[in-house]
This record gives sequence, C-alpha cells and structure tokens, in this order.
Amino acid sequence: MTITGDQKFLKNINRMALVRLIRSEPGLSRADLATHTGLTKSTVSLLVQELIDEGWLAEDDALVTGSIGRRPTPLRLDTTRLALIGGDLSLDFVEATATTLTGEVLEIVTRQNPRNDVDEILAALADAILTVSRHVQDQGRSILGLGIGVPGPVHASSGVLRSSAAAGWKDVPVRAALEQHLTAGGLPIQPILLQRRAACAALGEVEFSSMQIDEPLLYIHLGLNVGAGMFVRDRLLSGHGGFAGDVGHQQLVPDGPLCTCGRHGCAEALISLRAMSEALGVTPNEFKARLAVGDAKAHDVLRYAGHYLGVMLHNLWSTFDPAQIVLGGPCCRLGDAYVDAARNTLNQLAAQAGLSSPNVTVTRFGEHAVSIGATALVLHQLVRPV
Amino acid sequence: MTITGDQKFLKNINRMALVRLIRSEPGLSRADLATHTGLTKSTVSLLVQELIDEGWLAEDDALVTGSIGRRPTPLRLDTTRLALIGGDLSLDFVEATATTLTGEVLEIVTRQNPRNDVDEILAALADAILTVSRHVQDQGRSILGLGIGVPGPVHASSGVLRSSAAAGWKDVPVRAALEQHLTAGGLPIQPILLQRRAACAALGEVEFSSMQIDEPLLYIHLGLNVGAGMFVRDRLLSGHGGFAGDVGHQQLVPDGPLCTCGRHGCAEALISLRAMSEALGVTPNEFKARLAVGDAKAHDVLRYAGHYLGVMLHNLWSTFDPAQIVLGGPCCRLGDAYVDAARNTLNQLAAQAGLSSPNVTVTRFGEHAVSIGATALVLHQLVRPV
Repeated sequence: MTITGDQKFLKNINRMALVRLIRSEPGLSRADLATHTGLTKSTVSLLVQELIDEGWLAEDDALVTGSIGRRPTPLRLDTTRLALIGGDLSLDFVEATATTLTGEVLEIVTRQNPRNDVDEILAALADAILTVSRHVQDQGRSILGLGIGVPGPVHASSGVLRSSAAAGWKDVPVRAALEQHLTAGGLPIQPILLQRRAACAALGEVEFSSMQIDEPLLYIHLGLNVGAGMFVRDRLLSGHGGFAGDVGHQQLVPDGPLCTCGRHGCAEALISLRAMSEALGVTPNEFKARLAVGDAKAHDVLRYAGHYLGVMLHNLWSTFDPAQIVLGGPCCRLGDAYVDAARNTLNQLAAQAGLSSPNVTVTRFGEHAVSIGATALVLHQLVRPV
Repeated sequence: MTITGDQKFLKNINRMALVRLIRSEPGLSRADLATHTGLTKSTVSLLVQELIDEGWLAEDDALVTGSIGRRPTPLRLDTTRLALIGGDLSLDFVEATATTLTGEVLEIVTRQNPRNDVDEILAALADAILTVSRHVQDQGRSILGLGIGVPGPVHASSGVLRSSAAAGWKDVPVRAALEQHLTAGGLPIQPILLQRRAACAALGEVEFSSMQIDEPLLYIHLGLNVGAGMFVRDRLLSGHGGFAGDVGHQQLVPDGPLCTCGRHGCAEALISLRAMSEALGVTPNEFKARLAVGDAKAHDVLRYAGHYLGVMLHNLWSTFDPAQIVLGGPCCRLGDAYVDAARNTLNQLAAQAGLSSPNVTVTRFGEHAVSIGATALVLHQLVRPV
C-alpha cells in the first residue's frame, strides 16, 4: 500500500469509529468525540464535516450551557439523506427493502415466485431492488450499497451461492447476475454483499438496535427451513467454509422423521413449517388455514413442534451461553403456542438443572427480518473497515 | 493513560506481533520483520534485542548468502530460558506442568486427590505447581505465568470458579487460594489465569501447533464429564457468563437416561466415562478393567457411547462448520472402538446428506492435554495484549 493508501485507510477507520460512537450515544459533540478517541479536535472537526457532507451525520441545535464561549453541538446519525438496500432471495418469494442508517423502513417490495427457476427469480429480485432503489433516489437519497440474504452458504469473495438444499440450486453466481441486471437497469449499485438469510437477520438485530447489544446473539430463522445467524466477537460466525449455522440439521431424535436432507430426526424435520404441514398431510397454506379455524389436531402439531424448538434452543444455549436468542420466520407467526411451547421446554430443562433460562424474544422486524437484515449487512461492513 | 503508558502499550503490541510472526515462520530476520510489520529497521532491532535479552527469541547462525554486506540472522523462539506453568484442577487428581514457549514438556507432577475437599485439593495443586516451578527455576528458567484449568465456568476478573456440578463446588476463589499458597511457598507467580479445562486444552492445540491453525477449532473433553473449548476469531468463545462449551448437556435422546445435572438424555449421560460405567453397573476403574480383558458387554457399551459421541460431533459440526475437531480426555484412551464408532456415525450422517465429514483427531498431548493447555493459556494471553 502507498502512504496515501495507508492514510486513506486509517482515515476511514477513524471516520467509522466516529459513526459508531455517535450511533451508540447520540448527542455527542465534536469535543466529546476528541476525548473518546484521542484524536485531535481539528482531525475530529475535519472528519465530522466530511460525514455531514456525505449524509452520515446531522447536527442538532446547540445546547444551552451556562459556560461562556461556543456551545457544543450535539451530533446524531442522519436518517434523511442516505439509504441502505437489502434483498431477500428465497425459493417462494423475493423481497427488496430500503432502510435508513438506523433501520427505519423506507419501502418494501415483495413478489411471489411463480416457479423454481433461478434465473427468473434473480430477475424478479433485481426488478424489486431497482424499484425501491429508484424510489429512494427520487427522494434525494444516496445509496450506500446492497445486501442480499441467500438460502445457503456463500463464497463471499466471488459472490456465489454455493448450494441451497431446499431449492435444489448449486453454485449460483448471485452477485454477477444482480450486477448485470442492475447495470442494465441503469443503477449499478456497489458494493453487493451476500450472506445466509438467518445471518442477515441476525445483523438486523445487532445493527438496528437502539440498545447496547450483548454477545453472543443467536438469531434462529424458522420457516420452511431452519437456520441460525450467530453474532460473536463483533462479527458473524461463518465457519470454515461458510456453512456455520446449519442448526436445523442438529439431530434431536434418534431414528426420527426423515428430513429433506436425507438424515433422520433433524430439528428441521420436527419444527419447520414444512415438517408441521407434512405431519398433518397438508400444504403449508392449508396448515395455516387449519390453525386459523382452531383445528385441534393442527394446534397439537404446532405445540409438538414448539417443544422440539425448545430442545434445539436448549442445546444451542448450552453450547454458546448466548446473551440473547431472537426467533424469526413464518413459524413464529403461526400462533403463540409455538414459541410458548418452546419457552416452556427450555424453562423446564433449565429448571431441572437448577439454571435460569436465557432470554428468548421474537424479532420486531416480523416477516421482513431477512430483507431488513440484508440492509444491515451493508452497514455492518461499512462501519467495520478492519 | 499517560503518553508514556500509551507508548509502553503500543511497544508491547509490536513486541508480541514480532513473537507471533517468528513463531509462525521461524528463520525470519530483522529485515524480514521490518518488511512484514512496516516498523522501521531500528525499531525492530531494538525490540528484537529486548526479546533476546528476556529469553523470548534466539539467533541462529547467519545464513551464507551470495550478496555482499551483513548477512541476515535467522530468529526463532528460544526454548531454553523461559517456562510456562500450567495446572489442572479436577475432582480426582491435580496436575502441574511446565513447558517451553513451543509447548515442549519440561516436567509434569500428577497427584491423586484422596477425597473431595476443595481446600486440600487446592493445597495439593499449589504444592505440585511449586515443585515444577522450583525445578525449572533451578534450571535457570524464568517463569512467565501460571494458567489453571478448572472444572467449570470462571469469573475471569476475580479468579473465582463459579460452580462445578461434578464436584459440587460453588464460588471457589481459586486464584486467591493459589496466590496465598504460592506466596507462602516463596514463589508468588504472576499472572494466574483461569479457564475451563476443555478451553485450556483447546488453547494447547492452537498455541503449540507447528502448523497454521484453521478456525473454528473445537476441542471436546471426554472424561467423567463432557465439555468443549471453542476457538473462534483468534479467541476462546466463552459466552455471556463464561458458561459456553457446556456441550455435554445437549439433549441427544428425548426422555433418555438421567444425567447428573438433573436433565434426561444429555450427551454426558450417554457418552461420558461415568455414563458408560453406570450402564454396566461398575466403577470407572472396573469398567476399564473389563475393557482390558476384552469383556464383550463392556465393548458394546463403549461402541454405543461412541455412536452418540458421533451424533454430538455431528450437531456441533452443523452449527460451527469447524476446520478441525480435536478429542481428548480419558474416554479416548479406553480403546479405538469409542472414537471409531463416533467417526462412523459422523461419516454416515454426513454421507446421508451428501456432505463430506470434518476432520476429527485425538489430541497428541494425551492425558496431559489440560495441564499442557493451561500453560498455553499463559502464552495465549501474553501474545495477545489487545
């Protein structure tokens, strides 16, 4: 690296350190930032001015203090001039979302996928991304980047989805395909970042929290499939080959029901939307309809699945000692019985061992947790230059 | 921090960066180090001289090169002048070990604990530590610190063992007790660091490897109890309250055998030395004796336990996508059938899903993996000042 390169690099580290400080403590002044970072006041002023010019920071009205001289100006993240774009690539639907720096949703576009054709699905996703991106640009916002939640492990440097067991896809060049579509649409957004869907959702919890995030944080996606995003030491745990978080294939019952993966007794074969529907011999939509009309057998299936969700959470809890477990995905919207049964099982197991069980919550981002989390992926990367 | 404090702090970061570079690539010269770090040659020379003076580094004979001028002097870790001390605190025995900077064992003292009296046990451990420490001091070595592997989660800052279900201990001030004993013995070693036994053993694999360590690395301790040390992003994963790694209490069989923790079907109730012995209605020593004479029933029990070890490893593999899984502890020395059965189950489950299974090895440190790992804990902390 040249000296100029090093300087730019270091400058960006310092800039993003300021953004993170102001995010965790809105209202800090330039003088506060100098004290917190050890940077000179003139360096802080220079960097803050840049961040204001670029749309990251805004000034509030100066505080009235008793002291003589210039009053400190409180700084905060600016939520009016920049946008983060996120996409959710899944088998049955695509979704594009635009958020502010603090995770407020500006626009969401969701489209069902009529059939399992990965090229068509990628084109539909690109189209949804173009729609929300043009809209926020028309509002005068600059776009910082695009994050995509994908249904399987990724090869981060090449932007390839390695495989998706659920969809039957293999080595899909997601980034290249989207780059092509977005360029053709006249909006070549950069960077394009890829992560597993549950990992994106975990980042949504981390980056868009108004509170201090304690670690480890585990996010569990509960839908047709089951996966986890694990936030440890300020980053995602992605494993040696990007396959970490495949917790839906923990074996919970020896010789249990056959899983789509070919193994028996996997968590996914017990607690996923697919497993519950198949247990009743109906489609996921029929299962939802039966639950809605109070069908007793459907509710039994839901509670039974919730119990095994509790076992899976218990096993993850024993392994990670997480500060927080967040649940999300369609299963969490089937009825309280599912999450309640899981909490009951977890509490019972903890009580048997004389332990107090961990905090389990449901994501506040509802059905959009993955695409909102995908916007958080962009912010996550930007504010961590090293 | 004063400016002088900052300078010392930064200097130590640079010193330890040099130690790590030379450890991973023995034979580097001062000029190589300057190139690798961006430090000036004079700074590198100063720091290297300090490290040589203190016993960290040694010079090899200068290489004969074709070029004119001063020949580069290869540097390597010095294994002759410093020592790391480690202790293993467990219910049935205590062990103290001294190693070099590269993990070569200088001396080991092991003592059986006649009874479960934590004060007596700590006194015996301190005595063993004093014995090995005096011995290496008599050889002219300086001691860098003391690491202790303890049978449960620790409160790191206070040096207290929070609890040990197996021993029935609670809030044991291990560090304070050892400090008192060592001071009374005229050898007040500092620092004294505490970690769970399996976590120490994981660090032994990481710090004393002659090869590049790929992450995540999981170390599984298999003895009367079962626990894991997990190395992720250059550190141990300790969890929110220091309880991470309690993988022996993953539930593997619903309504399975009662575990000592009060829960049912825990891995520990299926695969530990205690569980295997109890399945046969004998003591651990009787179980070992039966295996030694080829008792068919005992070997069935061993294979059955090994199968469930495979299930536990499979579940950890799905969650972490580890680069390496290392097994250790007394169960690994009961016979090949145990680890073989585990590998078979893991391979079968992986094959059913069309995946290739991970690398599972047995620690090369044998029955001393925890106390050797405890010496690695000292090195781990020293070479990571930040």
